Amino acid sequence: MSVVAGAVPRTIEWVGGLDGHVSMIDQTRLPVDLVMLQCRDAKTIWDAIRRLSVRGAPAIGIAGAMGVVLGVRDDSGKDREGFLQHLDEVCDYLASSRPTGVNLFGALERMRGCARSFESNDVEALKAALLDEARLIRDEDAAMCREIGRHGESLIESGAGVLTHCNAGSLATAEYGTATAPMYTAHAAGRRFRVYADETRPLLQGSRLTAWELQRAGIDVTVLCDNMAGALLRSGKVNVVITGADRIAANGDVANKIGTYGLAVLAKEHDVPFYVAAPTTTLDPDTPDGSTIPIEERDPDEIRCGFGKQTAPPDVACYCPAFDVTPAKLIAGIITERGLIQPVNERCVAEILGACPS
Amino acid sequence: MSVVAGAVPRTIEWVGGLDGHVSMIDQTRLPVDLVMLQCRDAKTIWDAIRRLSVRGAPAIGIAGAMGVVLGVRDDSGKDREGFLQHLDEVCDYLASSRPTGVNLFGALERMRGCARSFESNDVEALKAALLDEARLIRDEDAAMCREIGRHGESLIESGAGVLTHCNAGSLATAEYGTATAPMYTAHAAGRRFRVYADETRPLLQGSRLTAWELQRAGIDVTVLCDNMAGALLRSGKVNVVITGADRIAANGDVANKIGTYGLAVLAKEHDVPFYVAAPTTTLDPDTPDGSTIPIEERDPDEIRCGFGKQTAPPDVACYCPAFDVTPAKLIAGIITERGLIQPVNERCVAEILGACPS
Repeated sequence: MSVVAGAVPRTIEWVGGLDGHVSMIDQTRLPVDLVMLQCRDAKTIWDAIRRLSVRGAPAIGIAGAMGVVLGVRDDSGKDREGFLQHLDEVCDYLASSRPTGVNLFGALERMRGCARSFESNDVEALKAALLDEARLIRDEDAAMCREIGRHGESLIESGAGVLTHCNAGSLATAEYGTATAPMYTAHAAGRRFRVYADETRPLLQGSRLTAWELQRAGIDVTVLCDNMAGALLRSGKVNVVITGADRIAANGDVANKIGTYGLAVLAKEHDVPFYVAAPTTTLDPDTPDGSTIPIEERDPDEIRCGFGKQTAPPDVACYCPAFDVTPAKLIAGIITERGLIQPVNERCVAEILGACPS
Repeated sequence: MSVVAGAVPRTIEWVGGLDGHVSMIDQTRLPVDLVMLQCRDAKTIWDAIRRLSVRGAPAIGIAGAMGVVLGVRDDSGKDREGFLQHLDEVCDYLASSRPTGVNLFGALERMRGCARSFESNDVEALKAALLDEARLIRDEDAAMCREIGRHGESLIESGAGVLTHCNAGSLATAEYGTATAPMYTAHAAGRRFRVYADETRPLLQGSRLTAWELQRAGIDVTVLCDNMAGALLRSGKVNVVITGADRIAANGDVANKIGTYGLAVLAKEHDVPFYVAAPTTTLDPDTPDGSTIPIEERDPDEIRCGFGKQTAPPDVACYCPAFDVTPAKLIAGIITERGLIQPVNERCVAEILGACPS
């Protein structure tokens, strides 16, 4: 089962005991150098999140939780109240590293909750409990990704072509990823297939990250520019498309990295099934459909000055949405850790959410 | 009528008399610097074509024709036969600058033909005739682009949104361009509209060239990454798509820059009419349909090392077709210098070709 662990170090993990440290892949150095970042204090974690050394909502959540441990483990001589107050300060500080990080906030809340519910005044024991909690957050994410892999792997047959977009990969999670989980699981089961990875402008997570991690894991991967997906689908080389999701509305509409929607339309045109792989935490029952999901516009210089070079007139206007919304009707199924949502509609989304009350 | 000439120097022109020179925009310096390249010999023209200082099939043809004049104008003391022999050598030399340049070969053939049919042994008069011919090739291209503009401008209403791909612009021709010709003509007629320019990976002709030339001409232009076109079309901001063409089959299938096909599918999905603008010389009656058009695969490093920076694993496989084929059924009309082909089918393509025997 250890395809990822065998060839690629873990995206992020705690090394050693309470006096240990956080080790993470510095994703800003990929795809050229594999450099492990060793973090021994909360500020290094804050910096790593801010400068995208760690990215992907689940991985950032894990980094935040482990950052809390780093931030409070040297507290000495404090009573319980003083310790909890400092822990709150550390959580607030880490939350400021990524103001829109829902998973980050969730992980920090969980660390606060863990501390408050700890029924002892033994601050050292509480520190150990916090480390356990941070590690549990990581392990739960890893287990969830593996379950997504288990539920999705049968979509990938031997000899298949699989197209994906952006990086919903092991680098965005504890391991295995979401969109990539069926690929790692099918590969571990001995099936051989080819993954096509959209480079995913403007930030190129597909070519920089997805191609890198799949190649390291021994999976056959081919990179293409986003605008080549139409010709590729028409060529008949793709049997299934699998992407991740940032947020899924109650009716099954999916917000994900810009370009996902266009890919879904092109897949439909060529009768290639389009799947989304995402944990049930991505399902948002309070959002009735995709029309109410706000779409962040990013800095135009991500388009104009890609990779440190001026590739458009300096002051030209840019259209730069970070996400788009793919309507449920274009999605063949949503692969979650609890099983497949299929067909994708309000009833089936509600069923998955009700199947295992959280 | 001089919108382009007013704000942007001509892509390529001959300055002065027989002792003059060729002046062209060095397109490798765009979009950052506007630098005019002054060419006084055939070798400088050869280099300019090879290093893409001048690109776009019609502009390369003009450069080749003018390069012939530069290559032979200093011939002195030669008799007619000796002159013609040297002219052939110059033509062969210039043809080697771009081995797949159909327009280049055509222009060079025309220069040879002009010389052979010249009914005098006066070599100086022959040189003057060659300069006239080279200038005529340029002027005919400019006139053809303006005719495309005249036939297509009514597609662009005031307040419209126009989406285009790659650079089938004035920088690829003598002036006005093909896909951009309706835009320049509509703009000159006083209509105000917004052009959306796909950046067009991997070589970014859209953001580097189309955005630059439209902005210089005072046309409202917005750049987007190719994968944002789906979301843009869905937003309702685009009323018409206009692209160029590299080659058009007898049934109206269009080979053009990679990404054109995906754009045509997305336009169809959103009921936005998709037009192609191209001279009738692009129509190839000997190619029955798009399935027989060979698609060049380009150097994977154009994807892996875009912008001078390694953005994918160095040895990862890439899918890198230069062109794709858009089936006629997705095309609302083809705008030529002789009028609109609409509907796009074998009969209407043949009609345009027959309407004015060449």
